[in-house]
Amino acid sequence: MDIDFKKITIIGVGLIGGSFALSLKKRGFKGKITGIGRRKENIVRAVGKGIVDEYYAGFSKGIRDADLIVLSTPVGQFQGITEIIRKDIKKGAIVTDVGSVKAEVIKRLEPLMPEGVSFVGSHPIAGKEKSGIDYASPELFSGSRCIITPTPNTEKESLEKILHLWNVLGCRTIVMTPEEHDWIFAAISHLPHVIAYALINTVIDLNENILPHSGPSLRDMTRIALSPPELWRDICFYNKEDVLKSLNCFASSILRIKGLIENADLDGLEKEFHKARAGRRLIEKAAS
Amino acid sequence: MDIDFKKITIIGVGLIGGSFALSLKKRGFKGKITGIGRRKENIVRAVGKGIVDEYYAGFSKGIRDADLIVLSTPVGQFQGITEIIRKDIKKGAIVTDVGSVKAEVIKRLEPLMPEGVSFVGSHPIAGKEKSGIDYASPELFSGSRCIITPTPNTEKESLEKILHLWNVLGCRTIVMTPEEHDWIFAAISHLPHVIAYALINTVIDLNENILPHSGPSLRDMTRIALSPPELWRDICFYNKEDVLKSLNCFASSILRIKGLIENADLDGLEKEFHKARAGRRLIEKAAS
Repeated sequence: MDIDFKKITIIGVGLIGGSFALSLKKRGFKGKITGIGRRKENIVRAVGKGIVDEYYAGFSKGIRDADLIVLSTPVGQFQGITEIIRKDIKKGAIVTDVGSVKAEVIKRLEPLMPEGVSFVGSHPIAGKEKSGIDYASPELFSGSRCIITPTPNTEKESLEKILHLWNVLGCRTIVMTPEEHDWIFAAISHLPHVIAYALINTVIDLNENILPHSGPSLRDMTRIALSPPELWRDICFYNKEDVLKSLNCFASSILRIKGLIENADLDGLEKEFHKARAGRRLIEKAAS
Repeated sequence: MDIDFKKITIIGVGLIGGSFALSLKKRGFKGKITGIGRRKENIVRAVGKGIVDEYYAGFSKGIRDADLIVLSTPVGQFQGITEIIRKDIKKGAIVTDVGSVKAEVIKRLEPLMPEGVSFVGSHPIAGKEKSGIDYASPELFSGSRCIITPTPNTEKESLEKILHLWNVLGCRTIVMTPEEHDWIFAAISHLPHVIAYALINTVIDLNENILPHSGPSLRDMTRIALSPPELWRDICFYNKEDVLKSLNCFASSILRIKGLIENADLDGLEKEFHKARAGRRLIEKAAS
């Protein structure tokens, strides 16, 4: 399985960008991988570790001859970066991203693409609560799903190339609209992250001295509260409407349970918990 | 390390009761272990698997000569069971439990103890989202903490025996009042369980077809929603005031984040997430 690109430039070489580069190399990519990053010492280290072949601290040089540009910074930086690099993207190149929010991002990026350059949004469902190149792995995407979100403006050929690329990296690709992606991931990913942060803050507000008493339940439930705050701040902002809709639905669910406890409605409470257990079993079944 | 009891009767031989019996045997307990259970086929299987030495489907016979009686059913059944067995408990015996709620339970059970019988509450911090004797393990308590909650009525000698017992089973014992136990565990255990159930129900209410899309974040966060609904219904009921207090604090935390997203207050949102990450790191540190 060949990869259709000769030179790939990754902007933002952290956990995801670094793993993307390592996966390319592991799958036999023979072209050049350029890394661009804000923090020079980080990107120098990425070259030293052999994750990328060369680096640029500035944008122009690293962009000019790239066939594929991958935006791999926190989503809040995509627009500003694209505004800087757009004049240097060569005709025929493809720009993609790995962000967790799609509709608002694509609405901002598509109009910035120069003539002959196409944008295809991707969201590989892989990650860790740890960030940075030290956690990058050539197997991070292996066996994961990757959501690809074309719009009516996406060129068919570019879409095919991006689908093929993620397949080569070991992903199962799923195509959906940016809007469909966003409401689904608001519910199953963005909401859980907000809840994990809120739960830890609740324990702190009640009495932070009890944090070390935590057992496995609280630990597992809040593992994702170790994720980078800037990343999730941006995701909440860019997917505002869907995240708020999920939060409202969750708040109703919490208030319903609160009402059942207040009224000592044991049957109602048990029914609520049974419904959840049955739903959770569906996840278990899907994963096995 | 000798165990001070000759005959131990476990009422409710499931994950915890079964693991308690297996742990006793593994640590060289030479006395007799009797199991009492509601469902005959379950308790017959517990004898067949060598988890307990004998069983009784009724109460009187299994209670009469026990030196230690362990209540290991869902907490909602403790009071009813104690009302039935109290006339058969021998003088000098100790009754303990393994329930996740202490104050309300002890308030109901202490007055039911006959002359010369003392109650000492325990809460081993161990468990799985799976229930039943098939998941019982002789190492379930090994390295866990066990909270012991004496009251002004608890006899010192009985307290010492119970502390010693859990130490022999490999637990680190921690003594606190039932009230202190309850508000701490409302925050770090009961609240997380309620949230896990509510989160799954939210996804179902939004669109249950998306459940199979769940990634590791949602899976890990809701693992405990596989726990038995009856158990957590009882815990919420018996620890009502503390659970409601935690739920109120959590609802405030959720509404605060919701307000920050609505107002696109990115700095405020980042601050909120940073506070949580710092708190979560304290848990990581305590566990390592």
